[in-house]
Amino acid sequence: MELKTVRWEVVDRVGTLTLDRPHRLNAWTGRMHTEVRSVLEQAEADPDVRVVIITGAGRGFCAGADAAALDGHVAQGAYDPGVGPELAMPGYGVRPEFDHNFAFLFGLTTPVIAAVNGPAAGVGFVLACYCDLRFAAAGAKLTTSHGRLHLPAEYGLSWLLPRLIGSGRAMDLLLSSRVVLAEEAEAMGLVNRVVPGEALLDEVRDYARVLAHEISPGSLAATKRQVYVDWHRDVGSAVAEAEERMERMMTEAPFAEGVAALNDKRPPAF
Amino acid sequence: MELKTVRWEVVDRVGTLTLDRPHRLNAWTGRMHTEVRSVLEQAEADPDVRVVIITGAGRGFCAGADAAALDGHVAQGAYDPGVGPELAMPGYGVRPEFDHNFAFLFGLTTPVIAAVNGPAAGVGFVLACYCDLRFAAAGAKLTTSHGRLHLPAEYGLSWLLPRLIGSGRAMDLLLSSRVVLAEEAEAMGLVNRVVPGEALLDEVRDYARVLAHEISPGSLAATKRQVYVDWHRDVGSAVAEAEERMERMMTEAPFAEGVAALNDKRPPAF
Amino acid sequence: MELKTVRWEVVDRVGTLTLDRPHRLNAWTGRMHTEVRSVLEQAEADPDVRVVIITGAGRGFCAGADAAALDGHVAQGAYDPGVGPELAMPGYGVRPEFDHNFAFLFGLTTPVIAAVNGPAAGVGFVLACYCDLRFAAAGAKLTTSHGRLHLPAEYGLSWLLPRLIGSGRAMDLLLSSRVVLAEEAEAMGLVNRVVPGEALLDEVRDYARVLAHEISPGSLAATKRQVYVDWHRDVGSAVAEAEERMERMMTEAPFAEGVAALNDKRPPAF
Repeated sequence: MELKTVRWEVVDRVGTLTLDRPHRLNAWTGRMHTEVRSVLEQAEADPDVRVVIITGAGRGFCAGADAAALDGHVAQGAYDPGVGPELAMPGYGVRPEFDHNFAFLFGLTTPVIAAVNGPAAGVGFVLACYCDLRFAAAGAKLTTSHGRLHLPAEYGLSWLLPRLIGSGRAMDLLLSSRVVLAEEAEAMGLVNRVVPGEALLDEVRDYARVLAHEISPGSLAATKRQVYVDWHRDVGSAVAEAEERMERMMTEAPFAEGVAALNDKRPPAF
Repeated sequence: MELKTVRWEVVDRVGTLTLDRPHRLNAWTGRMHTEVRSVLEQAEADPDVRVVIITGAGRGFCAGADAAALDGHVAQGAYDPGVGPELAMPGYGVRPEFDHNFAFLFGLTTPVIAAVNGPAAGVGFVLACYCDLRFAAAGAKLTTSHGRLHLPAEYGLSWLLPRLIGSGRAMDLLLSSRVVLAEEAEAMGLVNRVVPGEALLDEVRDYARVLAHEISPGSLAATKRQVYVDWHRDVGSAVAEAEERMERMMTEAPFAEGVAALNDKRPPAF
Repeated sequence: MELKTVRWEVVDRVGTLTLDRPHRLNAWTGRMHTEVRSVLEQAEADPDVRVVIITGAGRGFCAGADAAALDGHVAQGAYDPGVGPELAMPGYGVRPEFDHNFAFLFGLTTPVIAAVNGPAAGVGFVLACYCDLRFAAAGAKLTTSHGRLHLPAEYGLSWLLPRLIGSGRAMDLLLSSRVVLAEEAEAMGLVNRVVPGEALLDEVRDYARVLAHEISPGSLAATKRQVYVDWHRDVGSAVAEAEERMERMMTEAPFAEGVAALNDKRPPAF
């Protein structure tokens, strides 16, 4: 599909998806939602893309639902998707629990890292949380905002945030809609690393390039799948699947390369 | 019921429940348990109460089971409830998993904040953990104590504490019964905020008043319910329920107020 | 069985299991795996052992799978257990979800503390994580390493690590295989306490002795069981079991000792 609200660029195995409505702090629209999903599906199918970064153009990451979209919801008394049903995307269908809106990000095999360059609010906060990792610019503001709009915790954030930062800290952010800075978010475990704003994208790309070159794509895919599936089952099932996967992956060529690299004390080349 | 062991006061939409046996550091008795539950049921039914604070009179929050009650348990070789069966309280019955002793706090729609003004030990520690948030006075001492009494982890704390602070930190507190100060508890994520003791109640009330005025009651109720229910299900179910709730709440009048307030750059009035 | 790769010593109710291949930084072999499990089964059956410490001889804790073992896996194109089937150990069978490889540590009733004296990598990292608590020497290096070997997250670590440190921090460590120092691991909640290396074993033993003398063995066993079982069920079931256990334990002699000690303001003697 033609991209009107985001940009997409692949360099050295790392894809960067940039939310691109900087005049509106990249406020979220139905169109943007559809384009984000379309790009991620395309990235998933492209063997040259090993890692995806999501960031925002200009000063913001994503300021939440666009006010015009919100007015549309009020006018309709219902959620306005902003696109026709012909653009509805199929789920990955790998496991039905990941075939629900933002949870489809968990169904991807490709790791996705949020580079939170500025404010992330409401649905922008949700998007960052559904990424596998979060790097943030120093001083970036993060907030849920559903409570000030008379909405429920959005899109499964009530499932996800307690698993990221614990139930008590999640309650604070979810009940109060207060703003936390990147630094407090890092202390909570919500943000993995805080970086000066001007260095953010370089640092995220350095991190992503290590994944893209020194970690096997099969390992990235297996690990991501295991983590999210394992939230839904008991430890014994997790161990059993890990052992089955290990047996299988030990028969594959990249395992021999990994062992050789370890013995030679050099980075592996995958 | 007549209140003999607690006090209850509502100011500006915020109810304060004070454990009131200061000569015993508010040690827990069967009577107190029943009164706490009775007051919370009454608060739940009162639309003028948007948020509840639980704190202790005098120097302590709650020093755990009263020694006299413990002696009663030893004498009986069984748990002594301290009240007759006619005072047994019905559960909320909204979902059966919250119809078990302290877990009934999770079944309330009203947020409950613990203001831990002093020592919280044993069942006092349990009570604080079943509140949605915890503010604590600088230097306040927190401890489990079941291990020194040859008891199991009490009242589901073995379920709850790992979900608040992670499994390893929870094991430390649950196995050793060591005392942690409010500051260490904050670093662990057990306490949301540490405040100088003389300012504690003011700061908790300021926080509660924001919830009571700027967050819609419907959103508080939905968010609290979602967080605890979502511990028991998969992410897809959580997203699906969030979307159903969102569709419904967008048709309600407070949603229009929230959007108008956002557009006008003013706090919403709920 | 004859111990060739580990040492075992019991002093004052605390057993210390030392991985003992210091010339290889205690790299893991099939033989070591079997010996560790054998010693832990023996400890479990010995009423004189109340707590177990696992540590490494020399400079390392456990550097991961031995390179020779990895070469064996490559040569075989399959996992090489390093011992014959006659040494396969039965599971505890208490609950089937703990009868899977490292998860058997969760099925023990005896608390196990890792004293991470030096590098813990790969399966060494896994072993540390399956202990109930982790103390680490200042500067000790911890890392997963499966990604650099084209392997999946190992042995259920994708289940366990998110429950120790949250999903986002776990993704960082599991996807990147980067090294974290003990200090960063402590901030994340992965390590309970960082201690100067020369004082590590003394401090772990002091902690263990408190468990071994001042906490009843029945309480240690119940608490450990509750925490791991409660990851697999809802809060109501957790409360119900806690209450049943409490009723039963209150009829036992150590409960009376615990209450007497509390009243006398002295440590209990179990």
